[in-house]
Amino acid sequence: MLYLIGLGLGGPEDITVRGLQAARSCSKLYFELYTSLLPDGQDLSRLENLVGKAVLPCDRELLENGYEQMLDAAKGENIAVLVIGDPLGATTHCSLYLQAKECNVPVEVIHNASILNAVGCCGLQLYNFGRTVSIVFWTAEYRPESFFDKIEANLKNGLHTLCLLDIKVKERSVENIIKDRKIYEPPQYMLASEAACILMEIVERRRRTGSPTVLQSSTRCVALARIGWQDQRIVCRPLKEMCHVNLGPPVHSMAIVGETHDLEDEMLRMWT
Amino acid sequence: MLYLIGLGLGGPEDITVRGLQAARSCSKLYFELYTSLLPDGQDLSRLENLVGKAVLPCDRELLENGYEQMLDAAKGENIAVLVIGDPLGATTHCSLYLQAKECNVPVEVIHNASILNAVGCCGLQLYNFGRTVSIVFWTAEYRPESFFDKIEANLKNGLHTLCLLDIKVKERSVENIIKDRKIYEPPQYMLASEAACILMEIVERRRRTGSPTVLQSSTRCVALARIGWQDQRIVCRPLKEMCHVNLGPPVHSMAIVGETHDLEDEMLRMWT
Repeated sequence: MLYLIGLGLGGPEDITVRGLQAARSCSKLYFELYTSLLPDGQDLSRLENLVGKAVLPCDRELLENGYEQMLDAAKGENIAVLVIGDPLGATTHCSLYLQAKECNVPVEVIHNASILNAVGCCGLQLYNFGRTVSIVFWTAEYRPESFFDKIEANLKNGLHTLCLLDIKVKERSVENIIKDRKIYEPPQYMLASEAACILMEIVERRRRTGSPTVLQSSTRCVALARIGWQDQRIVCRPLKEMCHVNLGPPVHSMAIVGETHDLEDEMLRMWT
Repeated sequence: MLYLIGLGLGGPEDITVRGLQAARSCSKLYFELYTSLLPDGQDLSRLENLVGKAVLPCDRELLENGYEQMLDAAKGENIAVLVIGDPLGATTHCSLYLQAKECNVPVEVIHNASILNAVGCCGLQLYNFGRTVSIVFWTAEYRPESFFDKIEANLKNGLHTLCLLDIKVKERSVENIIKDRKIYEPPQYMLASEAACILMEIVERRRRTGSPTVLQSSTRCVALARIGWQDQRIVCRPLKEMCHVNLGPPVHSMAIVGETHDLEDEMLRMWT
């Protein structure tokens, strides 16, 4: 059996009782850490203590190239991949799921909270969100704006937008890729303030070039830092001010506020 | 302390370890059951056995009128409201949260999976969903179509739509309301086939009256029955056929498929 076990958003104790039982029945546990962040050095051992088993950290390479080995093992014994959030949020785990089915390996998904539903804790109603977008790091050569147009489409329909912020883990520099060196850059997590600056830059540029946007420097944004952790922080500010808000360490995400009703406004006032 | 504890989607074991610890620290546990379904008679006792405490079922009336009492108690001891899915998906719990804050009662939300992220298990990517809609029961006098226009807007943007299906628990007939009798109708849960029939009726009517829709009788739909339960079922069919698909008992929901990429198509083929 292959288990895909969601760990939720906070510490090891956010695993479900069912997830914990499944993990304890496994002979091998992989921990997938390239789509999210391990809070601190302690946590893998805390997770290991809770489960009572060793947990093997695995990266995209292992997960995408080590499928066969993993699925072979899962034919005779229980294997689990532990994933922060909900297991089927990311495409990688969908392909693992599919390959398991193709190899006739029974596979079970154990769901958990992810930022896509936990964002409700800021008081914006989940039913009033449009499409979720990902804001990516800009480089000198690569400054995509496709996420911006999706935010605009949501705002035109009165809808909020959840913005997931870029995470770069185990990336290599162009030089190291060319020289085929397995030297990895330090991980990078986009902060809400950085995301706000990117959005402000697009707003300003489009205004100057005569294509004003629905998103304004005064549009309310909600920054969500470390949701589900003990030190989570939520702050609501106009976009322009959000560029200067320091919410501490990652993981951050941000919601752009569309049309609101009274209860939503009341909730947002708690974070201003 | 007031805890709002998400129970996730399946049985009692879908509570998180953190949620279980919090529940065990409480002197009173309320179980909110009017926005979702208790799988069978057994489950409240199974939940009670797991937590090791009595659980008081509570309905909307108690929750909305019994706030003060609950919040008063939460000043001196730990109280929890247990909610199927994630606690802040529904507006009721947002107002409880707000009122707790206003009364200076510390409140903690313990997140869990909800259909809004677990729908990813059908293989449609969560990033490709637009606004979530609720399809409500039609009566002879009340046949709203606002959800339909939201589905249309999503389809025009190539996006999938998660349709939550109506649940009627502890509703009274007009006669019983007028006579002020607390006699409640049996609970009603909309099935995916019923939802498909409502959508088909709107498609047909608009076609006849010369306003053809993007949603077609051939549009693929994914019915999701009892997601997270041991006997969950997922079926993908054209809308027209979905009207006749029997997926067994509730809770059902349904996704309307927008534009798909290869991995999504591959996943959907598993359910056809």
